[in-house]
Parts: sequence; C-alpha cells; structure tokens
Amino acid sequence: LRAKLIAVIGDGRIDDSERTYHEAVRLGGALVDAGYFVLTGGLGGVMEAACKGARESKKYSFPRTIGLLPWDKAQAANAYVDIVIPTSIGFARNVINASAASAVVAIGGGNGTLSEIAFAWQFNKKIIAYSNYGGWAAQLAGTAVDSKRNDHIIPVQSAQEVVAALEGPDTTGEVEVEH
Amino acid sequence: LRAKLIAVIGDGRIDDSERTYHEAVRLGGALVDAGYFVLTGGLGGVMEAACKGARESKKYSFPRTIGLLPWDKAQAANAYVDIVIPTSIGFARNVINASAASAVVAIGGGNGTLSEIAFAWQFNKKIIAYSNYGGWAAQLAGTAVDSKRNDHIIPVQSAQEVVAALEGPDTTGEVEVEH
Amino acid sequence: LRAKLIAVIGDGRIDDSERTYHEAVRLGGALVDAGYFVLTGGLGGVMEAACKGARESKKYSFPRTIGLLPWDKAQAANAYVDIVIPTSIGFARNVINASAASAVVAIGGGNGTLSEIAFAWQFNKKIIAYSNYGGWAAQLAGTAVDSKRNDHIIPVQSAQEVVAALEGPDTTGEVEVEH
Amino acid sequence: LRAKLIAVIGDGRIDDSERTYHEAVRLGGALVDAGYFVLTGGLGGVMEAACKGARESKKYSFPRTIGLLPWDKAQAANAYVDIVIPTSIGFARNVINASAASAVVAIGGGNGTLSEIAFAWQFNKKIIAYSNYGGWAAQLAGTAVDSKRNDHIIPVQSAQEVVAALEGPDTTGEVEVEH
Repeated sequence: LRAKLIAVIGDGRIDDSERTYHEAVRLGGALVDAGYFVLTGGLGGVMEAACKGARESKKYSFPRTIGLLPWDKAQAANAYVDIVIPTSIGFARNVINASAASAVVAIGGGNGTLSEIAFAWQFNKKIIAYSNYGGWAAQLAGTAVDSKRNDHIIPVQSAQEVVAALEGPDTTGEVEVEH
Repeated sequence: LRAKLIAVIGDGRIDDSERTYHEAVRLGGALVDAGYFVLTGGLGGVMEAACKGARESKKYSFPRTIGLLPWDKAQAANAYVDIVIPTSIGFARNVINASAASAVVAIGGGNGTLSEIAFAWQFNKKIIAYSNYGGWAAQLAGTAVDSKRNDHIIPVQSAQEVVAALEGPDTTGEVEVEH
Repeated sequence: LRAKLIAVIGDGRIDDSERTYHEAVRLGGALVDAGYFVLTGGLGGVMEAACKGARESKKYSFPRTIGLLPWDKAQAANAYVDIVIPTSIGFARNVINASAASAVVAIGGGNGTLSEIAFAWQFNKKIIAYSNYGGWAAQLAGTAVDSKRNDHIIPVQSAQEVVAALEGPDTTGEVEVEH
Repeated sequence: LRAKLIAVIGDGRIDDSERTYHEAVRLGGALVDAGYFVLTGGLGGVMEAACKGARESKKYSFPRTIGLLPWDKAQAANAYVDIVIPTSIGFARNVINASAASAVVAIGGGNGTLSEIAFAWQFNKKIIAYSNYGGWAAQLAGTAVDSKRNDHIIPVQSAQEVVAALEGPDTTGEVEVEH
C-alpha cells in the first residue's frame, strides 16, 4: 500500500477571498475524496487552500496533506499541513515537489509554479493545468513544454476534470532520466 | 494536528538476520506505539527494519512511514514505506532527513548515518543513539558533536529507552541557524 | 577582485552543426572578450558551445569556464570546461546556475532552460534572452515571468547585444528573498 | 586542461589570532604553490584563511579560490574568494564541497566539517586530515569512516605533508556510487 501523492502548485501569495483560492479548496477536497494525498510546498495561498480543502473532505482522515517547506522552520507551514517536511534546501525544494508527486496539478501561478512544471516535465510526470484561472497554468494548459515528450499538459477547468484526468491513461510515455 | 516525525538512521546494507535489524524492527514498532511517525531514507537495512516494525505495531494505521529516497525511482523504496518521497537530489537528501525530523535515532551506521547526525546537530535536533549496536551511533552516544551546543547525544540501549528519551526534556537549547 | 559569472543556458542536445550552437560559440567568446566568466551546466549542446567560444577568445586565460554538473562524474563535463563542479544533486543544480550567476543569458532551450529562467527570476537576476533562436528564450524574450518584478526579460539578437545588455542599467529592482 | 580543486574544510568561527588559522593560511599557500585551486565553503575562519593563503602564494594568479556559499548573498563570501558561488541550498552545499573536490583536507572542525568528511568518504575522495589541530580532523586522522572503503583518512601535520599526500598514490579504490 502506497500513498498516491498529487502535487498542487500555484501562487503562494493569494488570499482566501480570491476565486483561485476557492477553487484550490475544492481541488484539495476532490483529491482526498478520490483517495489521493495532497502534496504542496506547505506555505500560503494555493498551498494553504488545497490543504484546507483536503481537511474538509468527508473522506479525510489524518494525515492526508504533506508540506515540503523551503527552509528549516516548521512553524512556517500553513495550519492545514498534516506532515511538515522542512527541507532546508530553499527553492530547490521545488524539484522535490515535482519528483515526489505521481502527478502535478497547477492553478494560476508565477515563477515558482513555472519551475515546478518544468521539473515535472523533466521527471516525466503527468501534468494537469487549469486553463481558467490565469497564471502559468493557463498559459501552458494544452501545450508541450518541449519536444522531449510527445504528450502535453492536460487542460482542465474544474476539480472534477482534474480527478478524471488523474484517472485517465498515462500518456507520458517512457523517458529515461539520465544519470 | 501535526505528525511528529522521528528519523531512524543506520546502515542500509545489513540484512534481516542481524541483531541490529531486529532491534530496528522493535524500534519502529515502539515509535508507532508511542504515536510517532517513522521517517527514514526509504531504502534497505535499518531503514527497512524500522518501517517493517512500524507496520507491525498494533497502533499502526496507514500511513505511518515516510521514505525520503535519494533518487527519482519510487520503486527503490522498501516494501514498508507508506509515503515514498523520491527527492532526486542524491545524498543531499540526508540533510532533509535531519531537517524534517523532530528527533533523530541512530543505530549502528556508517558514513551516511554520520552525515545525518552531523546535520541533526546543526539543525539543533534531539539526537538519540544506541550505544550497544556498534557503528557511529555507538561511537557518538553520550558525546557532543562540537561545542556549538551544550547538550550531548543521548545514549540508549533499547527501544523503550528511545521512547523515554523522546518524551524527556528538550535539552537542545536555542541555537540560531544562520541565513 | 571577484569573477563575474554569466550563466549561459540552452538546449544540451543540439549538435555543432546547428545555428544555435554557432551563436552560443560567438556568445561565449564575446563574454570572455568583455571580461566575464562563463557559467554553464557543464554538459553538451549550448553549454559546450559557450565554453568552446570562451576558450577561443583572444582575451581567454585559464580558467574562464565553470561547469556545474548534475551528478558526480567529472568526466561528464564537456571538453571546454576549465573548472568542473560535479554537484551530485541532480537537476536541483539548475537552482545553483541561477543563484550563482550575475546574470543569465538564454538561447533556445527546453524544460531545463525554463526552470533556470524561473529561478533566475526568483533570485532577482538580470535575464537576457535571444528572440531569434526559438525555444523558451524566444518565447519569453521581452516578457515578465510574473508580477513579482517590475522589469522584463531583455530581448537580444546577437552576442554584441548581450554584452550591451549586461553593461546596461540594473533594472531588477529590490526583491527580498524570503527565508 | 582542468583545474584541480582541493577542498579545505574546518571551523568557520575561529579568528585570525588562532594557530589553526595560521596553518590554514600556510595550507592555502602551499596548495597554490603546488598548482591546485582552493575550494571552500566561502565563509570565515578556516575557509577565509585558506583563501587568504592562496592569494599570498607567489604562484597565485586570478582566480584560484572558489567559495560555495550556503545561501544566496554573494556578499557573505570572505574577501579572498575569487569565484563566489552562492548555492541557495543551505547546508546541503556541504555535499557539493565533497563532490566537487579532487581531494579534501580537514583541519580542526565541528559538525559541518564532519558532514563534509562523511560525504567525501561516500564520494570516494582522498581525505587528508591534520592530526595536530584538534577537532574532527584530529579525531578521524588515520581512521576509516566505515568499512565501505579499504583505505583510511591520511594523517598529516603540515602543509608540506598535505601536498605530499595529494601527490601520493590514490588509495581510494573503486567504489560505485549507486543511483
């Protein structure tokens, strides 16, 4: 038995009055409803919203949310992270978000989200992106990051579509990570 | 509610016929009995034993074991890791084992264990070491790594003593991690 | 006296018959002509071309090229790297390319280049991108990665324009990296 | 032509009145006299002393000293670092000090030095340690870190002995780094 971790990535600086925040709450809930764990960077904004949504799911049981913090202070985690992992490696923890996830879901997002999408592509992970909440997720939804893979970033518009995409076929093909 | 992660560190190359393996199984069980999560490097030997013990605890419920793998292949994890986190940063993941744990317990151990003890000291974590299973744990049990901290590595001889040490006072004092 | 490191980033898989390779050779030469050191990921393609160009500059003296390799084998470095730094942290070394450079110059490029641009934006580095060699450099030339900074990625079309942009005003403003 | 990097590791908090500092100055000078580059963690104490010594060598030409800083601020480097590499990955940069060096020389040292020795052992690097300046270098001089390698840490008492040990046979044998 292995936990299936789905990374939710997006802007850490939006507040809980924004529609992106509300959708990220729905997304966190839908992921736990469907049996997944929610992996985030552990901080605020979309990260907080996804963890909050996870906790509100009727299928929730402790623990279901994992937060990979950039620095060493566990207190920096948002209130809804069950398993706090202070990495102490700074923004390089974005690499681990991509590497540790079964799949990555992006909503909105700035440069941090962009770096995580780039690494998820490198690690040959299924990438799902909201086309209707702006940011890098919307810009990249439906596109290919580069020609190394034959598939593309799966565009979605709702948490239900995310879950359907997660349960759909693996289109990432076989890409060798060179060592 | 936050998971309390206890890192169990030791030799990844011992097999399940060795007394160190058996003690690490008992240790994993005792940690889960006492309400803790077991954090390891996710591979074999002591890491496997601690996860196996965790799963055998009567207090076990999924998930209680977390494995921070050095590379990107989740399949490298031992069979008892509930939450596999392939970090893709190689041996630098030893830093995260130390950084993410509330406390670190060492049994036996070679150079990897030594590096994790060194980082746990840096991150001002409580460090507990078996004095009776050889390796770096035994060499360092009861000693101070350097003069930055006033406390020492707590020597133990059984899983029960580990749990008692975890519940004992925090003697690590206040050390600022410089940025 | 401090070396000024300019990171040259781009596709590691192009060969020396391609026009992007030829431009990267010219770029490496122009950077050394202007007194800079050339920092790359140490592997092939654009990384090799920039180092090769550096060595061909009349102003070249050993050492002027630095290669931050992802893994532990120094032999993986291209033949023109003077200072090989095998990082052993995998693709997380992309973070260091961005962090260690005074400025970043992108030409062409796939997901690795994209991640380095994203981190360079985070670290508030001047970013210069060729608009006329395709890839992520061309897609992002003249744009802002997100709203955290007020400036944009400086578009260029030649090595001479790169050097002019490097010597131009610092438009990155003051952005605090949070710890 | 490749720069041969020798990592000098030791306590970052000693000041320039201490005999360890003076010996590290001599060591930096002797390394440059012998044609090597000096790789350090870029900060104070032994790191500063080794870079200072390098600059004072008659064989010195710019650049010969490389500093791998833990964080993102280049200004944190000591005054004698020629090539500043702010890694932004925190103490995980200790891994790179070990990985990037042809050989590692330890003098004195606390937990940071200990972690670097542990990683240098992992990466199968020749390790040389002063037996006469205390700290972890003295404790480990002449010993084996664990049974993975058949050799031991080479004990020395002067900069001349360090250079002789560097030019002596490679006794590290063949150890595969697993991926």
